[in-house]
Amino acid sequence: MYLTQFLHRAIQQDAQRVLTVFGDRTRTVAECVDRVARFAHALRSLGVRPGDRVGIMALNSDRYHEFLLAVPWAGAVTNTVNIRWSASEVAYSLVDCRTDVLLVDDALAGLLPALRKEVPDLKTVIFCGDGPQPDDTLNYEELIAAHEPVEDARRHDDDLYGIFYTGGTTGRPKGVMLSHRNMVTSAMGTLATLPVVSKGGRLLHAAPMFHLADIAAWAMGLLAASTHVIVPSFTPAGVAEAIARHRVTDALLVPTMIHLLVNSPEAADADLSSLHGVLYGASPISEETLRQARERLPNAAFTQAYGMTELSPVATLLSPTDHDDPVRSRSAGRAVAHAEVRIVNPSGAEVPLGTVGEIAVSGDHVMLGYWNKPEETAAALRDGWMHTGDGGYMDENGYVFVADRIKDMIITGGENVYSIEVENVLTNHPAVAQCAVIGVPDKDWGERVHAVVVLAPGASATAEELRDFCRPHIANYKIPRSVSFTDALPISAAGKILKRELRERYRAG
Amino acid sequence: MYLTQFLHRAIQQDAQRVLTVFGDRTRTVAECVDRVARFAHALRSLGVRPGDRVGIMALNSDRYHEFLLAVPWAGAVTNTVNIRWSASEVAYSLVDCRTDVLLVDDALAGLLPALRKEVPDLKTVIFCGDGPQPDDTLNYEELIAAHEPVEDARRHDDDLYGIFYTGGTTGRPKGVMLSHRNMVTSAMGTLATLPVVSKGGRLLHAAPMFHLADIAAWAMGLLAASTHVIVPSFTPAGVAEAIARHRVTDALLVPTMIHLLVNSPEAADADLSSLHGVLYGASPISEETLRQARERLPNAAFTQAYGMTELSPVATLLSPTDHDDPVRSRSAGRAVAHAEVRIVNPSGAEVPLGTVGEIAVSGDHVMLGYWNKPEETAAALRDGWMHTGDGGYMDENGYVFVADRIKDMIITGGENVYSIEVENVLTNHPAVAQCAVIGVPDKDWGERVHAVVVLAPGASATAEELRDFCRPHIANYKIPRSVSFTDALPISAAGKILKRELRERYRAG
Repeated sequence: MYLTQFLHRAIQQDAQRVLTVFGDRTRTVAECVDRVARFAHALRSLGVRPGDRVGIMALNSDRYHEFLLAVPWAGAVTNTVNIRWSASEVAYSLVDCRTDVLLVDDALAGLLPALRKEVPDLKTVIFCGDGPQPDDTLNYEELIAAHEPVEDARRHDDDLYGIFYTGGTTGRPKGVMLSHRNMVTSAMGTLATLPVVSKGGRLLHAAPMFHLADIAAWAMGLLAASTHVIVPSFTPAGVAEAIARHRVTDALLVPTMIHLLVNSPEAADADLSSLHGVLYGASPISEETLRQARERLPNAAFTQAYGMTELSPVATLLSPTDHDDPVRSRSAGRAVAHAEVRIVNPSGAEVPLGTVGEIAVSGDHVMLGYWNKPEETAAALRDGWMHTGDGGYMDENGYVFVADRIKDMIITGGENVYSIEVENVLTNHPAVAQCAVIGVPDKDWGERVHAVVVLAPGASATAEELRDFCRPHIANYKIPRSVSFTDALPISAAGKILKRELRERYRAG
Repeated sequence: MYLTQFLHRAIQQDAQRVLTVFGDRTRTVAECVDRVARFAHALRSLGVRPGDRVGIMALNSDRYHEFLLAVPWAGAVTNTVNIRWSASEVAYSLVDCRTDVLLVDDALAGLLPALRKEVPDLKTVIFCGDGPQPDDTLNYEELIAAHEPVEDARRHDDDLYGIFYTGGTTGRPKGVMLSHRNMVTSAMGTLATLPVVSKGGRLLHAAPMFHLADIAAWAMGLLAASTHVIVPSFTPAGVAEAIARHRVTDALLVPTMIHLLVNSPEAADADLSSLHGVLYGASPISEETLRQARERLPNAAFTQAYGMTELSPVATLLSPTDHDDPVRSRSAGRAVAHAEVRIVNPSGAEVPLGTVGEIAVSGDHVMLGYWNKPEETAAALRDGWMHTGDGGYMDENGYVFVADRIKDMIITGGENVYSIEVENVLTNHPAVAQCAVIGVPDKDWGERVHAVVVLAPGASATAEELRDFCRPHIANYKIPRSVSFTDALPISAAGKILKRELRERYRAG
């Protein structure tokens, strides 16, 4: 099993099909294979040896897509850099896994001077943008033109495909090692479970391509003979324009993006009727956003994916029809075909149905481990089971209800409160556009339930009104004892609300 | 990866769903898991050790389905016996892979006395039928009642799932060793390619369950949460009744069965409207049979699978829409997601498009090898590629056109003739119900193209009329120089026409 096999299959079956669309640039399968095979040759000429890491720090583009194929084609390992990180965070990850060849585009080139200082081994920088070329960089297109195509190295099975750094929300980054088998199993198993990417459709890449969520959707698109429609980054107007212009059929988005797309005035006039499938993840979708999204995107079926980078990344799917069930729609769905999912106690034993424990997952999609971190690997991978660190419970039909990350659970007066439950109630209030519920230190209760609320434009509500609104729906100890109003919530590149940041901000009270 | 993981997923998600229907007997997922876990315990009590072979020689039933799960649950390896074989052929396969525990039903119990003589190691026979119990056998239901459930042994990945004997059409049987990874890859990859078994539907088992074609469909049904509707064996009336009564949605059939189902007077009144998907294999479908089938089964989409036991068993699929293309409909379709398919010359190099060579396949679905046959294994598996022995060519869109088995190709006057091409023409003649084209020795031409024809009921045609009918469609040297008329063609259990037998029969004349 190897990821590039989908490209071999594509050239055998549809060489002249359009594979990528980026702005006004389109490339066929045959063109892509030729460019990938040439760039792989260039990488080898630059001294990249089997198993070496090659990095990319760039906005989305068709060249990003080529990178994801050319690096394994050359026999090397991808390292897709989080573009929201500071120079020193990026430097940490490049040094950690010894990435000495890096692709960079216009948007991220500004970090280069700092990186060159902090990463002494960074020997080769390749400019993959379309603007003016920075100093001391090689040019991507010139490298392609200067090298003949080579054969695919066909790294496979347990060979490393990429190292994906995670940890933006929970501390120092860890490099998640994913193999070719992890990637292919995930793509085949997810599609065998539900047709989340349609056959021969047009798949939008608006979520950042460095993140495994989008890379996994991309791999499914390769399998499903999709045309990849790529925009540099998410903007409501840009995405609406791309959908309308290229008749996009499928998209991976996060709820925040869906919220912005369907509520943004700049996207209000676009014809979005071609969109038939929306796969979303990173966080649950609020009932209100789902309602608005279904109104604005009447042809789209919504599927939620729950998982994490360590799971390549899907563990469970919530099907479109499950979204219509008032209870199941609050879950993360059920195990995909290639995953086993259990809820376990700290000693690893399964807990009864309905009882909150840690979500654990096994299967061929579970990472090989964390790069250079044997202790963290041993803590996460026990007897072949990935311990996600997420709390949750399972119902009698296998639906997984994800509570907060275990560390994020609020303990107030000895009672456990999962913030998602409180958030689900609050977002139903008409004045609430977005909210996050956290625990803050409290001398009486240990922790106190605190809500951080973004009001809808033009709307108003007091803390007391919101508390009254919660009262019929949840137990008294779960009702926020305090409420802060803010203009925007801090969001990670993957679309997750950065609760750690909120806790620090509101710690004082 | 292991096959029983689909059963674990089923009990987590749908414990009360009906899993099997056999006559008036229905069993839920929970009942099935309980029975499988008990029978696995019984097998262990009978001395079955990890990796031991357990055989079954029976018509289709819900107990056959339980066998396919209970044997790996116990840690053992399945050996599903070809029920068309003579006692000595069966004995050969049992001795070859040392199967000393055998399940047998009413229909096959007649072979027991001979087997006991020829298989000295056969120590335990378990009767899994519903009729009177033969002497010296244990009772399946009593064993289940007498044993508590045990935990799944969870054999996985490269552990052997089963040994499947093939070779009915080409010589002495070989035991194809398929692993759990082979089986799961095949199920996931095939469903990821095309939805050949619908989610939550009712899947008919009318093809013999000992054959890997049906076992592979069954594995997809396990993944897709199907209810398995099982009939003991194929009869037009029995299948029509089962489809109508249980609202069957999906079926695996061979073209001969499709032909009989849609033409049989006993099946003419049944409501077959629930049938939405028909997967067929073993041989291409004639245009005439397809036309009749589409008329009688207007809601059914037809998908052709091409492969062999050694490929678990699918290599390519011909999609429903491809059936509407006059050229592509004559092919076996294109590589599934988990397979790489190439056409190679005798030294293993790829031949140009349109050139006939040997079809070679690689992927995680390729068998581990032939049991106890290192030479045959080395000849078939070279550099990870399964050399199928089938001749064929590929077009510029990856469609594989399967010619005869290489050994079956007719060489007449120095010209190669692929019998399928001749057969396709002949079956279009209104008087021809079925036909097979073979090469017979000829003093002038080396071999001579010979047609064996079954006429449609009440129809008549002379050899000369059939030859005239062929003339506008194929080159002169491909037109049958001689024609025999017969009442029925010899058919293997898998639905393949036994050309070897025909060649022997018509060698003289």
